[in-house]
Order: sequence, then structure tokens, then C-alpha cells
Amino acid sequence: MTDYALLAKDMKADSFKMASLSEETRNDALAAIASALEAHSEEIFAANMTDLENGKDLPAPILGRLKFDQHKMDDCVTGIFDLIKLPDPLFKKQLDRQLDEGLELVRVTCPIGVIGVFFESRPDALVQISALCIKSGNCAILKGGSEAKESNKKLFEVIYNAGIEAGLPEGFCALVESHEGVDALLSCHDSIDLVIPRGSNAFVQHIMANTKIPVMGHADGICTIYVDKDADLEKAARIIADAKTQYVSACNAAEVILVHEDIDKEALAGAVVAKGKEAAGVDITVNMDGEYKEYLDYIMTMRSIAGVDEAISLINRNGSHHTDAIITENDETAERFMDNVDSAGVYRNCSTRFADGFRYGFGAEVGISTSKLHARGPVGLEGLVTYKYKLYGDGHIVADYASGKRSFNFKDL
Amino acid sequence: MTDYALLAKDMKADSFKMASLSEETRNDALAAIASALEAHSEEIFAANMTDLENGKDLPAPILGRLKFDQHKMDDCVTGIFDLIKLPDPLFKKQLDRQLDEGLELVRVTCPIGVIGVFFESRPDALVQISALCIKSGNCAILKGGSEAKESNKKLFEVIYNAGIEAGLPEGFCALVESHEGVDALLSCHDSIDLVIPRGSNAFVQHIMANTKIPVMGHADGICTIYVDKDADLEKAARIIADAKTQYVSACNAAEVILVHEDIDKEALAGAVVAKGKEAAGVDITVNMDGEYKEYLDYIMTMRSIAGVDEAISLINRNGSHHTDAIITENDETAERFMDNVDSAGVYRNCSTRFADGFRYGFGAEVGISTSKLHARGPVGLEGLVTYKYKLYGDGHIVADYASGKRSFNFKDL
Repeated sequence: MTDYALLAKDMKADSFKMASLSEETRNDALAAIASALEAHSEEIFAANMTDLENGKDLPAPILGRLKFDQHKMDDCVTGIFDLIKLPDPLFKKQLDRQLDEGLELVRVTCPIGVIGVFFESRPDALVQISALCIKSGNCAILKGGSEAKESNKKLFEVIYNAGIEAGLPEGFCALVESHEGVDALLSCHDSIDLVIPRGSNAFVQHIMANTKIPVMGHADGICTIYVDKDADLEKAARIIADAKTQYVSACNAAEVILVHEDIDKEALAGAVVAKGKEAAGVDITVNMDGEYKEYLDYIMTMRSIAGVDEAISLINRNGSHHTDAIITENDETAERFMDNVDSAGVYRNCSTRFADGFRYGFGAEVGISTSKLHARGPVGLEGLVTYKYKLYGDGHIVADYASGKRSFNFKDL
Repeated sequence: MTDYALLAKDMKADSFKMASLSEETRNDALAAIASALEAHSEEIFAANMTDLENGKDLPAPILGRLKFDQHKMDDCVTGIFDLIKLPDPLFKKQLDRQLDEGLELVRVTCPIGVIGVFFESRPDALVQISALCIKSGNCAILKGGSEAKESNKKLFEVIYNAGIEAGLPEGFCALVESHEGVDALLSCHDSIDLVIPRGSNAFVQHIMANTKIPVMGHADGICTIYVDKDADLEKAARIIADAKTQYVSACNAAEVILVHEDIDKEALAGAVVAKGKEAAGVDITVNMDGEYKEYLDYIMTMRSIAGVDEAISLINRNGSHHTDAIITENDETAERFMDNVDSAGVYRNCSTRFADGFRYGFGAEVGISTSKLHARGPVGLEGLVTYKYKLYGDGHIVADYASGKRSFNFKDL
């Protein structure tokens, strides 16, 4: 039986080896991994076929996510080469300050350390996340869904071997296969610095409720669009239909529409339904109960409200602090909304579906965080690094400053 | 009986009012609070006298921290005026990017929201922390030690009334007096965004173990100094003595000295003891058991090791990731240590006691964080803010980009 606590402890203790690799070594390893994935594609597809056969009774959307074919392989390889081109997030000087003569303080970015990644069904998530961790100098403990067991095993083997061959340190990542591993790892708050869950709401909520390790992600995404009295209603219908239909099960799909009381709610609902049909060929159902919940279906709700202040209050109290939008042509009302809504993303006159790392131009995304600490909104490489303070002296002691014998002379260099 | 969950929920829902105040309003409120503290100093000293009388059997160091006299008042008022002078941490544009024509993404700093601050004995901590929260636009729930009950009540009353008068929103901060309040508040992870504990290790550990809210701070501080074979031994003795004696019960005081095996450990210990006597007039006891623990006394331990790699490994496995130093004249060895030790502060040839917000030139400090997420090391105003993404469009929908009808044109503005 694997001792998961020991695995995590050893990885943590050795994580400094990964942290000090040069940009060149990390990028070379990524390139080697991309080549190895292509070279072993037949084995990978065969392993995936086994998973697909074992899971043939699973629902079609899960089978779609489980499939790892040439198309997914091409996406993974392209993704790795895009990642190689991104600027190095490590060793960046964020501060360089002389505290006194001969005493220099430098703040530099460094990896977080050990990241536990728990994901469901999609084997391409394993590739993407390992690559992000390598680029950012982090060690990763990966746990995939049991339905993708054979695919994950093969992908991990190829990635791990290619990484080691290219100079990454032993144990730079590990794959956990048994389900008991999850709970064991969630209790390793001394060794695992961060947990990233990717999967259904229930899955993310389970993880958030069962660990003291900081979790980067979000459980629900109850996104609201407020249609102000000064809205362009054609724009509103178009945006709402997109926010609901463009990808109905996404966390940034809109669920609740707050409508200014001066606007004919029924007419707006009709326009939204028509746009949904026209743009996406689907029938949107619009309830008028105004209930705050995540529908994850072609269903949304509308509620009539008094104005922007009520919208702000409702969203802050009932929303999930993910992404919320206002539709208005009034600059003042828009700013009031954008300044006061307490969400990772606040939008004016555009679809909530833009909440995404690629669409923000981050190049790669680990997920979307609704936490307000560390990283908020779509999280790219920047969210996978922290910093440390380095202080260089020449025999400097604090007693000299406390006694007044010497005094600080702060100067940013 | 106070309903603490409701108190926190209401504060959270209303926290946007605090978040949108202008820099001028926040600074004016701070100035008004400083004046009010001075104007009510007699009442404050009288309340403090009651606490001192009620606590007359408490140990002398606690009574020292409990005392709030003219000297502490002057420090508090000076601290507030220093804080007013610091640049505004809010509304800073961290990113301004055109995603496509007419679609602009802006990332701006904003407050974290509701901060729960739990502190022991020192009433001046209440003043300092309220002021930091006001400057950074955060709402604060304050819980002080029962021994400072009367002082805290009076200080809070003066601060709250002056703040409201100067235009801060109702409920911008609250004082919790009963001890049951603590546990009730620690379970409010939906309403309280961050907990900052300030007090003994046991106190901080209790809080960390009993909440799902992110905690900013540190429990223990087991700081290590490694004396390399290329060390200047006079410098080493001087730095070690300072790191132990300059303030013996501080979290950044050194506890463990790792000594390269080529160095005469007994001679070094003798030199450290002599320096401690000469510089601080105290007798340092040096054990040779090498046990990793926080002594918080004029006791330290020495252990003979093989070299810098063993030092890195011992510190990463047994230290508390707070602040660790190397004494060496060898640049290469120093860089190896500074790059690979996984601590918030890594120092060369200077005392670990420099780990402090004021000494880093931050002007004000909330505490020192050993967490790697969000804020690490001494935490100033920057650690009390987060950011949000604002996206401005003109009817932009995602379907147009997904279908290829439009494509992103990223341009940093």
C-alpha cells in the first residue's frame, strides 16, 4: 500500500530541486514531453480505447470528455508549445531595495511548491496541468478519475519518463491511482501547498469541505446579468442568449437575469428566446420566479427589481462572486455596478462567457478562482507562483538599528 | 445575545460601501480618528487603568503589553499619520488590455472584504489594525483579549464614532467582546474573507486548526542560521548573538545553528556567548543536541553538518519556512542556499531579526505570513487587497469568437 503522506512529505522536501531549474531546462523538458507524447501516440490511444470500452455504459458527454484521439493529441502538443513560448514566471524581481548601505532586499518570484491536482474524466487535463506545473517549477501530485485510469497511467508514464530524461528531478510529479489516495492527500496540509480541483460542482465542493489545504477554484457559478433601464434591449437579448447558450454547462453561463422595473420583462424574455433559437438553435426556458440557483441547462430566471443598487445587493448576497454583467448605455450606472459588485469579473455590455484565461489573453489557464486571496478570476501561470524575500548583508545586525547607532536608508534600486 | 453569523453576513453584504470610498474619504477618516483618540485620551487611559487593576496579578510582560499610556498613544497617532502618507493600495490598474475592438479588460485592485482580526492583550493592536483596514477599504471584525476589555471598548467607541462622523459607512467595523464570539466567527467562512490572528503560538495554532477561512499569519518561527565553512566567524558570532538576543521572544529570533563540520563548534559557541554578554548583557546557553524547536529563551542549539546541501534539506524539512540565514563569504554557496531554502525570507550575512515590515520599508505591517499563497513574509497594505477584472464591451458575445466570425486581437494599452 502506498503511504500517501510520505509521498507528499518527500515531494515537499525535494521540491526545491524543481524550483531551482533554469528556464531553459524547464522549456526543454516540455519540448521533450511533447515529442514523447507524439512518439507514443499509438500506445496512448490504445490505453484510451480500453477506458472507452470499460466505460461504454457511461453517459455520452462523459465519454466525449474521456476520449483521447489524434485531435486531442494535437491540441495537447500545440498547447505545450504555446506554453513554452510564454514568458518565464519564475525568478522575476518584484522589488529591489537598499535598506541601508550594504543591506539589499530583493523579492523574487518562486514556485508554490507541491500542488495536488484532482480532476475527473478528461485525460487531456493531465497533460495540460503537468505542463503548467513544469513551466512554473512546481511539483504535482495528480489524481484523475477512475474512468480514465488506463489513459492516465500511460500519459503519466510517457510524461514522467520524458521529463526525467530531459533533466527534471526524480519525483517531480506523481500519479495517484487509488481512490483512497484522495482523502489521504487532502489531509497532508503540511506537505501540499495548494489543491486544484477540476470537475463537477459536487466534486469541487467535496474537496473544499474536506481539506485544510488552500483550494484554488470555484464550486458553483451563479452568474447574473442586470438589464438596466438605460439598456439597449437588442444588445441585452443578444448578450443574454449568448451567455446562456454558447456553452450551457459552463460555470460562466448566466443563470439569473435581473430586469429594471421600467422594462417589459415578458417582451425581453421573448427576445432572448428568439435570439437563442436564431443563434444557437435551442429553446431557452425563462422562468419568472427569480430563484437564485445554477441551472446548467437552457433555463434561466428573470426578476424585476428597482434599480442598480438592488442589483448590487442581490448579486453580492446571493451570487457566487464569479462573473456578473450589467447591460446599460449609462456610464454612471455602469461604473456604480462595476465598482460595487464583489465578483472576480464585472462586465459591461458583454457576455459572461468571456470569463476564461484564453479569452483574457493569458495563454493558458489552470481554472477560475472565486477565492479573493492569491489569485482571482481566470488563473494563469502567475497564479502558480509565489515569491520570497532575499536579504543580502555584510554582518548587519538589528541591535545597531534598534539602538539608533545606525538608521535605515530606504532606496529602491 | 449577539448573532455573530448575522453580524458577519450583514457586514459582508455591505462591505462594497467601504470598498468604493475615495482615497480622500479614507484618509480624512484616519485623520479624524487620530484627533479623536487624542481628544479622548483621558477616558482611554482611565479605561486602561481599570484593565490594569483588574489584571494586577497577571505576569509583568503581559501587563507591559496591556498598558496604554501617553507613550503608546503617541505611537498610535504617529502610526496613523504615517499610514495616511502611504500610497493608496486601491483602484490601481494592474492590467489594461484590449481583447478586440471595443472590448477592454482592466484589472484593478480592490479590498478583500471582511477581515476578522483576533488579538491578545495589546490594545494598541486594535488601533493599528483598524487603521490598516480603513486605509485598505476593508471591513473588520475585531476581537481582543478579555484582559484588555475596557481599553478595547473605549478605543473602539472612539474610532467607530469618529469614523462614522467622517463619512465611513455604518458597520465598517465591529467589536466582539464575548469569548463565544470567536468560535462563532471562525465558522463564518461564507462571510469572512480572511482571518488575521496576532498572539502566542498556541493562540494562532488554535485559530488555524478551527476554521475554514484563510488565515494570514504564522504559528511557530523556528529560524535557522547556517554557518558555512567559508564564513567569517567574527561576523557569524555577532549575527547569531543579535538574532538570539535582540528580542528573544520574537518569531524571527534564531533557534537552531547549523555548523559546517570543518568549523570548531565549541569555539563558535564560546564566541556567540561572549558576544551576547557584550552586546545585550545576557547569558546565552548553547545546547549541542541540535533539536529543532522554538526556544523563545536565551537558549539555542548547534548541530554539526556536512555542508550547504544538508543545511537546505534540514531547514526545508524541519524549519517553519519563516526566515533562515547563511553566513558565508562564498558567493556560490550563498546563492545555492538562497535559491533552494523554501522560506519567506532567506538571508546572507545578516540577522534574522530583520524580518519585519518596518525594516523592509513597508511603513506598516499586519504581521508575517508563512503561507505561500497571497502574501508571504512581512505583510503590508498590499497583502490586504485583491483585484477584480472589469470587462467593457459593446454587445460582444462569445459565439462570434467561437465560430471564427471574429478573432481576438490582444493589445496591452
